[in-house]
Amino acid sequence: MSISIGILGATGYTGLELIRLLYNHPEAKITYCSSRQYNGKKISDVLNPLKGYLDIELEPFDAREISNRCDMVFSCLPHGKSMEYIPLVLGGGVEVIDLSADYRLKDISVYQKWYQKHTSSHLLSRSVYGLCEVYRDKIKGAHLVANPGCYPTSVLLPLIPLIKEGLIESRGIVVDTKSGVSGAGKALSLTSHICEAGESFSAYKVGRLHRHIPEIEQELSLVAGEDVFVDFTPHLIPISRGMLSTIYVSASEDKKVLMDAIATFYKGAKFVDVLEGVFPSTKDVRGTNRCLIGITTNPITHRAIIVSVIDNLTKGASGQAIQNMNIMCGLDEATGLDSIPLFP
Amino acid sequence: MSISIGILGATGYTGLELIRLLYNHPEAKITYCSSRQYNGKKISDVLNPLKGYLDIELEPFDAREISNRCDMVFSCLPHGKSMEYIPLVLGGGVEVIDLSADYRLKDISVYQKWYQKHTSSHLLSRSVYGLCEVYRDKIKGAHLVANPGCYPTSVLLPLIPLIKEGLIESRGIVVDTKSGVSGAGKALSLTSHICEAGESFSAYKVGRLHRHIPEIEQELSLVAGEDVFVDFTPHLIPISRGMLSTIYVSASEDKKVLMDAIATFYKGAKFVDVLEGVFPSTKDVRGTNRCLIGITTNPITHRAIIVSVIDNLTKGASGQAIQNMNIMCGLDEATGLDSIPLFP
Amino acid sequence: MSISIGILGATGYTGLELIRLLYNHPEAKITYCSSRQYNGKKISDVLNPLKGYLDIELEPFDAREISNRCDMVFSCLPHGKSMEYIPLVLGGGVEVIDLSADYRLKDISVYQKWYQKHTSSHLLSRSVYGLCEVYRDKIKGAHLVANPGCYPTSVLLPLIPLIKEGLIESRGIVVDTKSGVSGAGKALSLTSHICEAGESFSAYKVGRLHRHIPEIEQELSLVAGEDVFVDFTPHLIPISRGMLSTIYVSASEDKKVLMDAIATFYKGAKFVDVLEGVFPSTKDVRGTNRCLIGITTNPITHRAIIVSVIDNLTKGASGQAIQNMNIMCGLDEATGLDSIPLFP
Amino acid sequence: MSISIGILGATGYTGLELIRLLYNHPEAKITYCSSRQYNGKKISDVLNPLKGYLDIELEPFDAREISNRCDMVFSCLPHGKSMEYIPLVLGGGVEVIDLSADYRLKDISVYQKWYQKHTSSHLLSRSVYGLCEVYRDKIKGAHLVANPGCYPTSVLLPLIPLIKEGLIESRGIVVDTKSGVSGAGKALSLTSHICEAGESFSAYKVGRLHRHIPEIEQELSLVAGEDVFVDFTPHLIPISRGMLSTIYVSASEDKKVLMDAIATFYKGAKFVDVLEGVFPSTKDVRGTNRCLIGITTNPITHRAIIVSVIDNLTKGASGQAIQNMNIMCGLDEATGLDSIPLFP
Repeated sequence: MSISIGILGATGYTGLELIRLLYNHPEAKITYCSSRQYNGKKISDVLNPLKGYLDIELEPFDAREISNRCDMVFSCLPHGKSMEYIPLVLGGGVEVIDLSADYRLKDISVYQKWYQKHTSSHLLSRSVYGLCEVYRDKIKGAHLVANPGCYPTSVLLPLIPLIKEGLIESRGIVVDTKSGVSGAGKALSLTSHICEAGESFSAYKVGRLHRHIPEIEQELSLVAGEDVFVDFTPHLIPISRGMLSTIYVSASEDKKVLMDAIATFYKGAKFVDVLEGVFPSTKDVRGTNRCLIGITTNPITHRAIIVSVIDNLTKGASGQAIQNMNIMCGLDEATGLDSIPLFP
Repeated sequence: MSISIGILGATGYTGLELIRLLYNHPEAKITYCSSRQYNGKKISDVLNPLKGYLDIELEPFDAREISNRCDMVFSCLPHGKSMEYIPLVLGGGVEVIDLSADYRLKDISVYQKWYQKHTSSHLLSRSVYGLCEVYRDKIKGAHLVANPGCYPTSVLLPLIPLIKEGLIESRGIVVDTKSGVSGAGKALSLTSHICEAGESFSAYKVGRLHRHIPEIEQELSLVAGEDVFVDFTPHLIPISRGMLSTIYVSASEDKKVLMDAIATFYKGAKFVDVLEGVFPSTKDVRGTNRCLIGITTNPITHRAIIVSVIDNLTKGASGQAIQNMNIMCGLDEATGLDSIPLFP
Repeated sequence: MSISIGILGATGYTGLELIRLLYNHPEAKITYCSSRQYNGKKISDVLNPLKGYLDIELEPFDAREISNRCDMVFSCLPHGKSMEYIPLVLGGGVEVIDLSADYRLKDISVYQKWYQKHTSSHLLSRSVYGLCEVYRDKIKGAHLVANPGCYPTSVLLPLIPLIKEGLIESRGIVVDTKSGVSGAGKALSLTSHICEAGESFSAYKVGRLHRHIPEIEQELSLVAGEDVFVDFTPHLIPISRGMLSTIYVSASEDKKVLMDAIATFYKGAKFVDVLEGVFPSTKDVRGTNRCLIGITTNPITHRAIIVSVIDNLTKGASGQAIQNMNIMCGLDEATGLDSIPLFP
Repeated sequence: MSISIGILGATGYTGLELIRLLYNHPEAKITYCSSRQYNGKKISDVLNPLKGYLDIELEPFDAREISNRCDMVFSCLPHGKSMEYIPLVLGGGVEVIDLSADYRLKDISVYQKWYQKHTSSHLLSRSVYGLCEVYRDKIKGAHLVANPGCYPTSVLLPLIPLIKEGLIESRGIVVDTKSGVSGAGKALSLTSHICEAGESFSAYKVGRLHRHIPEIEQELSLVAGEDVFVDFTPHLIPISRGMLSTIYVSASEDKKVLMDAIATFYKGAKFVDVLEGVFPSTKDVRGTNRCLIGITTNPITHRAIIVSVIDNLTKGASGQAIQNMNIMCGLDEATGLDSIPLFP
């Protein structure tokens, strides 16, 4: 098998991460990369790290070309743009994994409240939420996968098994997440200027403001069978990549029970692991598709404290996207993704 | 007035920060610095940044010398060591500000549970908890001030007014704090190796483990008039200095009410400020004695989310210690501490 | 004495650094700040770290206002803009310290080759190159001081005494300089994006390209009495501030002789020091106006290797500018600048 | 083919990097890891990032076991220790790649001057200096390869072709190199404390002090056919990994000629590339086995300025070691090493 891959919006950080990972994927070949901004340039002239690895030319979007040359397309376009082009790609018989938020929220009114007018909402019912370890079976048959956001991935992986097993209360969940700056993308902004973000630490969109909140709540509610609301605060770590969520939930069971529930749920899953006796750091998963989880409990407050780490660009974006591709194509889901973190 | 200052354990990071701040203090003069490790060396040969500023010789501990040459002593010794020497200093008629934890916990059994055997517990009733903006009046007459821990400072300053005014529930408080690595001191450890801590982010002492928990709970309980328990998770930011606490509390009032309560409580206080419309970053206070606070509320979860930042070495340690000295000596409490942060 | 200060282009990093330093200057008061971009806003709403310290309104440029309200103006405008406004300020009888390059190069053809058309070249003969420790006497009587560039400052301070004393050859000088990213200013660019510059190290403008080359060569030639040419390579360190130059020169004398020559030249100078037995790091001078120098020699190659460090925003820009102001105003040149570095 | 691999001193940074790279090597399998310090522990309990990847037990050194279970041994022991154990490994018929300096210097008196007494100098004549692209043919038949130092690798790769072709003068070479802190290893030292090294930049071992100097000079002299001496200054970048050398040499030819000479010399070599029109950053090669080179010339000083970057732990240590293994085993030398850098 050789899967021909197209990437829309290839020159951002998730595009580059896809290319990095696909380069060592034995069954995939990148045949098409689009970019509005750099149309006509060689991708390796835009992205120096690709020199000598991938030297193809960046092309404008062309649904017919994509249909002729690709089996699978990853959209790294921003929300709003993704839903503009994806229907055309699907129309050409090409499968799509969308890294934007456009097809993640099932309730169009929620999408339109948090984002903007939805222009291809007829696809919402067809799209599958691509949280691989949870929705593997649905993903298998999907033609359009909505790749989860980085924050939701780090939160949902530890929480879903606990809610499923009724081990935690769905009320009062606090999610305190810290992310490397690459999560904000490559666009220029004072927020990502090294003299502002470097040697510093800050919270942003504090309160009910971040667009990943409805995504987290949708998925937790689905599993809980009732409306779940969370307090979620994102923070910026002065590093390129890495994400750590510290999650506080009410739980009466001991940590051993919670750990076992998660471990059992992810039994056989290559990329999700519960650690015993240690808590993970973001560097423990840098550049990998892993999610590592540590748990403890506070017997006085009857809370469990959960720490989960992912690489926001890998498991939180492009790695999970490739895992989705593997599932859709009937490959072992770890194909091309099984690697040791870059440490130190 | 000229206050003669002694520093015990002068070569660590809090010692260096004291020296940095006292250098520009118009009423203070450092006359004595002790160090077991570097006894006999010039302090500027141990601490390169001091070359040309402070070139006195490091001496062994000698209570009589201290009594002769100092009006005020700062102890930067670790807990356990502080309580060994401080009674001797006090006995010589010299006032003491202790940056260790030895005289912070009023209940000796709590101290002995979290730390070790207490060898000078008779002083506990005489020591004053040096949270300047809250205990100014008691500090004025104190001879032994227990300088607060960095984590407690960042947590107590925003919470005390809210609890005092009955605006938040004392149950269910979640404190998620992130600290620069200098909080762990200068001692060598893999945890502070730049190849381990750098480009990474991690939680540590997750659960009911960190020794600042009893200190936070003691002070909150005192104000609340009932036992208060918190969930507290410390994290390491890959920077030298800076601390940010994200605090989640149940509150039914709007953010405006909460902001006003804090602002009113700290009216006239030079170093504590509530920001409107923005949330502070640690770099906004780097090198200063300030605590900046931002607040918002989530109407769905009925929680307030509070973000407070301090410089862990300044307001969280040596700056607050000097502020305490100013109060004890009847000076304007901002003397020598009024400066703009080093930004960028 | 109280000097009324105006700052043109106050919201960039050199402007903020001027404000930080002037805040603790006993004889200066900021009465006017201009900004085209943020005209009408409070400066503390543009620069969060200033909240509570300096809350004046940003105004448009107005020579008459400046003349009425200022004794001294610092121009933090970019080159090209500076020479547009400075003649108007001088015309109003106000003294000027220009942090741009517009009045540094004495030969207008050199300026026009490296920069652009010069529109007020009649002022070139009146401007004094503000390398304080070298041109103190000329600065005293100046009305227009061209504040040196950061790179030239770090290079000229160690080299000028050695050339003056004939201790090094003026041919074959290699200057390898590394700078924190704040040297590139606050303007948005992929180069200063934390995901590009962070966790990385790079050279830029390699070869005969950087605009500080003619400035270095002008000053070295002046001292040498013959044309001096250097190889100069600037690099970006992934930190906010700090600059280190490693300089290789042919020298037949021993390091002791070289060290003595520099130490003698700067005898009595508060801010320039030669270290014995250690080499300085940039953090040793962070936030200060110091230049620290270390030297050794290689007896096999007959080269001396000189390491000098400054804070590019302080001694390399705003600190030296204030030192120039002090000299011009007849104050002790260290007024408001004598402080211990922020370490760690 | 499946090569059974042993690693001596497996728990340091070069050991971890070997394991990371070998994990995806299709022909290699790690069967033995030694550690004095952690003998008896599971390697993944010592190195968290290995959890789930490599969980074998750390064993004491045992030459018989090694002989039974390994085809090839990598020594990550420090110099001095390496030469103690390697003769025993070789005696058991196992091939060795030594990452220490023990067999790099051919002249025993040079070794003993810069390091210590050599206890197995009879092996010096058998060892091959493992600079892959230069000594490929000799490496093929070697049983003991002395893997080059990180600094020498970054310097020799660009300089050897230029000296070979007579395009640069062998006198007056200046090498200014900057390295991530992992080059100093995992040992605890104030130098690698994040509060000292972080947010800072410094030179170290300035002058004729660093032990990589004789290695660089040996290799350059060999190629030049005469004694070559260099000025070499190492610096610490506040990052984990990455190395950049800025090299100044006298050259009369244009940069095009120099670039062509290097490109021609490395024609067909997968890992060494000359860039046109841009200069590389260390992040462009992070985690890869590449050396990227940029060159320009200064027509006034008749110097060429060369910038080369490598990842000090990959091409500068473990990556090149595996490349040597590939060559020794008759594999394509890029086997297991062909990957895109982790960017950002």
